[in-house]
Amino acid sequence: MSVYLVGAGPGDPDLITVRGVSLLRQAEVVVFDRLVAPELVDEAPADALRIARDALSQEQVNELLVAYGRQGLVVVRLKGGDPFIFGRGGEEVQALLDASVAFEVVPGVSVLSAGPAAAGIPITQRGLSSQVVAVAGHAADLDFAQLARTKSTLVFFMGLANLKAITGGLIGHGMGAETPAAVISRATTLEQEVVITTLADMPEAAAHLRPPALIVVGPTVALAGRRTLATLFASPA
Amino acid sequence: MSVYLVGAGPGDPDLITVRGVSLLRQAEVVVFDRLVAPELVDEAPADALRIARDALSQEQVNELLVAYGRQGLVVVRLKGGDPFIFGRGGEEVQALLDASVAFEVVPGVSVLSAGPAAAGIPITQRGLSSQVVAVAGHAADLDFAQLARTKSTLVFFMGLANLKAITGGLIGHGMGAETPAAVISRATTLEQEVVITTLADMPEAAAHLRPPALIVVGPTVALAGRRTLATLFASPA
Repeated sequence: MSVYLVGAGPGDPDLITVRGVSLLRQAEVVVFDRLVAPELVDEAPADALRIARDALSQEQVNELLVAYGRQGLVVVRLKGGDPFIFGRGGEEVQALLDASVAFEVVPGVSVLSAGPAAAGIPITQRGLSSQVVAVAGHAADLDFAQLARTKSTLVFFMGLANLKAITGGLIGHGMGAETPAAVISRATTLEQEVVITTLADMPEAAAHLRPPALIVVGPTVALAGRRTLATLFASPA
Repeated sequence: MSVYLVGAGPGDPDLITVRGVSLLRQAEVVVFDRLVAPELVDEAPADALRIARDALSQEQVNELLVAYGRQGLVVVRLKGGDPFIFGRGGEEVQALLDASVAFEVVPGVSVLSAGPAAAGIPITQRGLSSQVVAVAGHAADLDFAQLARTKSTLVFFMGLANLKAITGGLIGHGMGAETPAAVISRATTLEQEVVITTLADMPEAAAHLRPPALIVVGPTVALAGRRTLATLFASPA
């Protein structure tokens, strides 16, 4: 085995898996996403080659993984969240398969539930929501007619820049303007910020938040309001 | 802090988080789900009180957490997967809030993506699926008309006993009988079994599988077929 696609988790470095950190400690090459906690990159041996993914195209990342993998080096591709939930892990896997380079996928904690959890919001709850829709919020072809009809929790990834279009699209297709909605910025890190509001008020209330952020829409968001102890949630420290 | 709701991950004990295992090692009381790896329960100190959740009602679990939490003991509630993705974590949180017992939620790797990943299936893929719907497959009120229309990856939890109703419902509401579909039983454990087939053939092809199992439906399932190296995926050992 030589290339490991490792999910770094949602932000808090302690939320990587035991397997993920153990592989990092053996890594000879680490290719890491910008948003991955620096503490995790530091777990690699001092002489490991560290490559920031930031300055590279997806094509270049694929080529690097194949090239170092072929050399038989222990390569850790450290990705934010989970490699396969909007992580483009599938494309890297495809490149490795095409090149017949052995690899392993080590899943990670996705911000999909860790983000809402850190804000006191369960994304499923008996009697309230038995369905979760995870959506790429930056997609141009969002099917708002379909989304607005769903009786489930909607979770938009990468949707902050598209916030007005999302709330407008949902309301325009019949979702109630008073539907509980939250934006969680930089979830599970020390910079976490949470806004809990309604669909109609969200664009203004969340205008100051910075990416990466998760948008959560649905009845379970209202549960966070009950939580006077919500600050006890999550573990940024 | 005294009660920790910890996600144990999808099955493989190495897929718990660093924070989760560190809390287990300090636990004075562990209340664990039946499907959690025994190796994880063993991580608790030898003199920790171990309570199997199996024989208890949800109400009794809530009461135990509150009672031991009030005593100021370090209580770890070890739950399969992620506490908030069909994990009923919300109900336990509510009981703790009502009783003003301090707690923390430590998210876990959900089988939502770890299961498909272990079978070589990315649940999102650029150009193929930019949306994932996670559904409680045992629910009596599944909205097949809505689900069949979705252009996304469908992931049914706890749906094995309901397999015929699910495939029949989707096909009956217009989803193509040839849509790629997979069942992943006991994902990421040594007992993992995967069946990759079509919606129409799934009930027969997967009849021998045992729960817990995940049902995945959608175009990205077909990517697993390309994977001659699929056995290199995942890390049960």
